[in-house]
Amino acid sequence: MNYSYVSHLYCPKCSQTYSTKEEHHLCPCGSPLLVAYDLDRLSRNFTAEDLVKRSPDLWRYHELLPVQQKENVISLGEGMTPLLSMNTLGQDMKIPNLLMKDEGIIPTGAFKARGASVGVSKAKELGIKEIAMPTNGNAGAAWSLYAARAKLNSTIVMPVDAPRITRNECALAGAHLFLVNGLISDAGKIIAQAVQEKGLYDVSTLKEPYRIEGKKTMGLEIAEQLDWQLPDVILYPTGGGVGLIGIYKALRELIELGWISSDQKLPRLVAVQSEGCAPIVEAWKQGLNESSFWENSETIAFGINVPKAIGDFLVLNALYETDGCAIAVDDASLLKEQERIAQLEGTFVCPEGAASFLAARRLKEENWIKEDEQVVVLNTGAGIKYPDTVDCEVPILEPGDSL
Amino acid sequence: MNYSYVSHLYCPKCSQTYSTKEEHHLCPCGSPLLVAYDLDRLSRNFTAEDLVKRSPDLWRYHELLPVQQKENVISLGEGMTPLLSMNTLGQDMKIPNLLMKDEGIIPTGAFKARGASVGVSKAKELGIKEIAMPTNGNAGAAWSLYAARAKLNSTIVMPVDAPRITRNECALAGAHLFLVNGLISDAGKIIAQAVQEKGLYDVSTLKEPYRIEGKKTMGLEIAEQLDWQLPDVILYPTGGGVGLIGIYKALRELIELGWISSDQKLPRLVAVQSEGCAPIVEAWKQGLNESSFWENSETIAFGINVPKAIGDFLVLNALYETDGCAIAVDDASLLKEQERIAQLEGTFVCPEGAASFLAARRLKEENWIKEDEQVVVLNTGAGIKYPDTVDCEVPILEPGDSL
Repeated sequence: MNYSYVSHLYCPKCSQTYSTKEEHHLCPCGSPLLVAYDLDRLSRNFTAEDLVKRSPDLWRYHELLPVQQKENVISLGEGMTPLLSMNTLGQDMKIPNLLMKDEGIIPTGAFKARGASVGVSKAKELGIKEIAMPTNGNAGAAWSLYAARAKLNSTIVMPVDAPRITRNECALAGAHLFLVNGLISDAGKIIAQAVQEKGLYDVSTLKEPYRIEGKKTMGLEIAEQLDWQLPDVILYPTGGGVGLIGIYKALRELIELGWISSDQKLPRLVAVQSEGCAPIVEAWKQGLNESSFWENSETIAFGINVPKAIGDFLVLNALYETDGCAIAVDDASLLKEQERIAQLEGTFVCPEGAASFLAARRLKEENWIKEDEQVVVLNTGAGIKYPDTVDCEVPILEPGDSL
Repeated sequence: MNYSYVSHLYCPKCSQTYSTKEEHHLCPCGSPLLVAYDLDRLSRNFTAEDLVKRSPDLWRYHELLPVQQKENVISLGEGMTPLLSMNTLGQDMKIPNLLMKDEGIIPTGAFKARGASVGVSKAKELGIKEIAMPTNGNAGAAWSLYAARAKLNSTIVMPVDAPRITRNECALAGAHLFLVNGLISDAGKIIAQAVQEKGLYDVSTLKEPYRIEGKKTMGLEIAEQLDWQLPDVILYPTGGGVGLIGIYKALRELIELGWISSDQKLPRLVAVQSEGCAPIVEAWKQGLNESSFWENSETIAFGINVPKAIGDFLVLNALYETDGCAIAVDDASLLKEQERIAQLEGTFVCPEGAASFLAARRLKEENWIKEDEQVVVLNTGAGIKYPDTVDCEVPILEPGDSL
């Protein structure tokens, strides 16, 4: 038994292949690279049953991850997040079989930990010394903390408007942290230049091939938690879209492995965006294979404020291939949904997660989601990372007062 | 097989017993009540091996929890938090076998979720409609969110200085929330009066017997994660001390069940406090069985700012019975330890957790902890809930700038 069944990297655009033994970023044709596994050999050596005794983190799927030596694994116990029944909210939106995959219950409080754990581990395996990335906050926090654990240096640039707590996380981890008076796309340009000048290892979204493998484990877990019976619909708040691409990749690998039967229909994948930044929605509406840069983007759901995603064509392909869709929601309504979720279900989701629940509600109203369907919503982070989205006035008492 | 093997409540001071079928708070003698189980019968029907296939949350131990009907369980997927190796930090403090039980990876971002899940579930089973409690923040957040999920109302009073994000959590959950210009002891008096006047269900620390059962699962998990081989030392940041009482209770129950052999020495339990609020430390130094009210208490580790704990005698008893100790650390040093932990291990612990790591360091310096011992430190919450403990100045760039 190998620890990993990784075989090679390949370009989904031009089909060129590359080795996983050396550093690779984008394909010369401009496309992100994807990781391939020897699934045929794995399917003969390993079954889903073998997973049962493994510890509840994403490394339980190590055969399907790219790290070849176990000692290179950098883990903070990320993964196997709860898949919760959301009955009360589901009844409210007439989707009784509504589930939440809660990615707030993870190191650093956001799903970004998955990509960071796998990406940093592989960077360590490749002998990298310093990583660099632009971020809307949570990814930078996760990568700089995991990098610290791996004894790698990190250089992070984030917008001044990114959630404040993510600054603290980067700074505390000892990252070289910079803010930029602009968007993640401005941060990206600064990082690109630094990468070129200083020879840093670029871990920008999809500019290294391994982050997506970490995100993929959300799909593996949803399948395992539902006993290898896929749901009808999965909604995912989409900025860079790596999670959606990863979930789609995971489900295809599971079918190839035979862990889910090939006569199961894939879930319809839904890319959820904000009306203030909806390039994927716009491209999907027009049936295009790529999105256009969204000018002057703005949304309170900061994690999905990505005006142009480098993997947009992969996201759109996953939507088309699964008969999914893309939908945008407005900030005011998603904040109301966030409150409703807390009051009905006792969980404080992040704005991006709230956007996805709101999208489910809207799609049910439009009858795109049917009442008897099983629907999984990804909540990509803990609401506690976004204190400013909640406004509350609380009466102040003096000692000895009574209620 | 019963879902729960709960048998009755008993008073650890006067030995009076009570039924778990009706509402009980303190014993008329003034002591908190503890929960007893029919461990003899359970040991014949169930073994630790049977746990393997269960889902990774604290309800995997439902036989050892007080909820009798599964449908009353209110869960957000809490428990089975990571038990992480802290090698690098351990080498730095010359405790190579140092582990962290990371209670930041849990709903609401703090270990309080455990007590809330079990306590709210049992309240629901008892037919309660409205709970009330004073809190230093995190407990109130957890209980009001779990109460919302259970469709119970909640009334919460917290100090104005409590971590701000916990206000948002209570408010978003729809709790009746009040702040008090004072300490948790002032909040406690206000709640006590409201309980009496309005007939609310008092869930103040140890004033209902079930919270401790939720906290106990930290001990069950540590034992299971170490394959039923106990560590030498467990350090726990001690405010109300419920977690420490719970861990001690768990280990005794496991011995009685035969899941850990009775010739294993119990871990030496350590109560960690702040120099600004150290009533347990003071009592332990003097060999007393109870603590005295600590005047003008103050510490940045807000969760352990408890001037007089109602369960102090149970905490002190656990320290004496396990040859443990109590130790206080100062705020400035614990903040330095918090930063060191992030830089060496990539994890952003809460101030209370940092206090406990610092205590381990100090106890090793004093040779109370030996180099070859296995040491588990409880990090009781996520650092992201305390943004103000980190001070960082970050350079601001303009779009087009370079690093």
